Amino acid sequence: MSEMPDRLRDGLPKPVVLETSRKTAGWGLFTPHPEPVLTVQPGACVTIKTVSWVGATVPEGPVAYFEALGVPADQVLPELLEVATIPRPEGSSCHILTGPISIEGAEPDDVLEVRVLDVSPRVPYGVHITGPDCGVLGDLLERRSTRLFRLDPEQRFYPFGGGIEIPFRPFAGIMAVAPPTSAGTVSANPPDRWGGNMDFRDLVAGSTLYLPVFQPGGMFYTGDTHGAQGHGEVSQTAIEHSMAVTVQFLVHKGGALKFPRAEDADHVWCMGIHEDLDEAMRIANREVVDYLIAVMGMRDDEAYRFSGLLADFKVAEAVNGNKVIVAEVHKDRLRPLLGGADLPVVGGGLH
Amino acid sequence: MSEMPDRLRDGLPKPVVLETSRKTAGWGLFTPHPEPVLTVQPGACVTIKTVSWVGATVPEGPVAYFEALGVPADQVLPELLEVATIPRPEGSSCHILTGPISIEGAEPDDVLEVRVLDVSPRVPYGVHITGPDCGVLGDLLERRSTRLFRLDPEQRFYPFGGGIEIPFRPFAGIMAVAPPTSAGTVSANPPDRWGGNMDFRDLVAGSTLYLPVFQPGGMFYTGDTHGAQGHGEVSQTAIEHSMAVTVQFLVHKGGALKFPRAEDADHVWCMGIHEDLDEAMRIANREVVDYLIAVMGMRDDEAYRFSGLLADFKVAEAVNGNKVIVAEVHKDRLRPLLGGADLPVVGGGLH
Repeated sequence: MSEMPDRLRDGLPKPVVLETSRKTAGWGLFTPHPEPVLTVQPGACVTIKTVSWVGATVPEGPVAYFEALGVPADQVLPELLEVATIPRPEGSSCHILTGPISIEGAEPDDVLEVRVLDVSPRVPYGVHITGPDCGVLGDLLERRSTRLFRLDPEQRFYPFGGGIEIPFRPFAGIMAVAPPTSAGTVSANPPDRWGGNMDFRDLVAGSTLYLPVFQPGGMFYTGDTHGAQGHGEVSQTAIEHSMAVTVQFLVHKGGALKFPRAEDADHVWCMGIHEDLDEAMRIANREVVDYLIAVMGMRDDEAYRFSGLLADFKVAEAVNGNKVIVAEVHKDRLRPLLGGADLPVVGGGLH
Repeated sequence: MSEMPDRLRDGLPKPVVLETSRKTAGWGLFTPHPEPVLTVQPGACVTIKTVSWVGATVPEGPVAYFEALGVPADQVLPELLEVATIPRPEGSSCHILTGPISIEGAEPDDVLEVRVLDVSPRVPYGVHITGPDCGVLGDLLERRSTRLFRLDPEQRFYPFGGGIEIPFRPFAGIMAVAPPTSAGTVSANPPDRWGGNMDFRDLVAGSTLYLPVFQPGGMFYTGDTHGAQGHGEVSQTAIEHSMAVTVQFLVHKGGALKFPRAEDADHVWCMGIHEDLDEAMRIANREVVDYLIAVMGMRDDEAYRFSGLLADFKVAEAVNGNKVIVAEVHKDRLRPLLGGADLPVVGGGLH
């Protein structure tokens, strides 16, 4: 579909393209010591052509699945057919992940900065699925409910019906690094300290994600791309839609993050991730206070005060085993401290 | 300080003024069958001159308390001194509540609509308090930390220090009706189905709150006014600041709400209130789904889908025993269903 806009290319290296295939992708599982499918230098840009999991997990196979929803076979990505033939390992989530990408020089206790440059649809449709045992109200529905949503030609919205438009705001539901060795091999369904299935819908093009590094090279994966979702993803899925995700990687030496952080032009975001929402809330509050103390230089009581008066807490995702609460601070509130300079989001020096 | 702007008076009845005194106010306690301090007809406007609790609960009394913070005695509201002499009943919260106001014709199972017309400061300062056992991170601080914040002359912000401005966005932390008889007499600290200490910072002038009615006359209270707060109120208090709150009351016969709802020009808000954030989340999701089914006429699977794709969930308040999660829907998403007409937020007929 669309290509990365020229304005995002200015001054940036030409992206390396990583296709999804049996060799570069797999079912949703993170291992601490994976073999990279691509190795790049810090500063490199990569376009990762991901495929959504929808249609790959059903016995009838992707083509029959999508034909039943009115999608012709030539609009089903060939990579989806290819990945669907990979045996699904025990304990994996349903997601198809592309990667991992090794970033040279990234070491444990560093921070991997992932600048999201572009997220573009690869097919003109997405799918939303809900039903019994799905989401926050798992007992609401008696029958599975699947809907195909076609993107309008200008890629602005999906029609919901009754004149309602769902704004098209694509992002990657999963961006992760390999977990620490102590975590072992884990499902990609619950998000955790290594990022993963955070489903934080503000990580659109123009935003930047910061992930703690646990393994040499970081080992970055992405997938589970979404065209639209509310904060919370409460009905279990977003509009699941295959996207090409273009990112630039940078490495901060010794940033030593505990949980992921993120930013866009206007906001700093600190994440709390836990199976219990109250605990996720405590972690998110602790994370924003730590940021204000360690990076912005506030005293502990003033940092806590600031978090109560000027931070907003929202539920990014409430349905994936672990839940995500994001503390949001508007940059306008903090900029005066730095005389209008760019705000740092993590400590450590850029590599 | 300021008066209600003329534009808000157009076509509205002149507000009745309710002063705070020993006769019209008391410590934070709700009883199912209170005596009203004022009775009005539906459609009436009332300006409630509230006083913040800060300085009223300390042994040295309000004047000495504020003088130690640099506030001259003539800037301490006389009503605060008067209310401070009322013995504080066992089980009450620290809040000073003004009311209750009886709205004629409001009966159990009706809905009380409270249009917030104006919230204006009565003194030029507010106070923020945090410390040990305060807020989401009760173990963060070793010492109590109190700060006086002076409002800038144009009433746009409070200076935080270092050039940081805290936008002035005043609202009433508590708006409530009398609880159901089955609940008995309860502290005003935890918010609940009858509203109360929701600390939902978007209930500024121009917003409207809808409360389920449990007792004849509804019996409306307000107080705990705030000049600024983030969603979450995580450090325990807002900038606690005495305000004059002007509201208009309307009654919906048979609206039969389970939990409070609210709206402003751009949003519909459905609240989930519970001591456990996960349960508050479930209630908020159920509330927005019920709204979409009962008021907007959607099928259950489409309502649940809509809530996942187009509703945002934020933590309004996480520190008052019961916590509040608000499901937010932008009205632009729903307006096409009604051909651009005003969106109803509750069922039932306007009285």
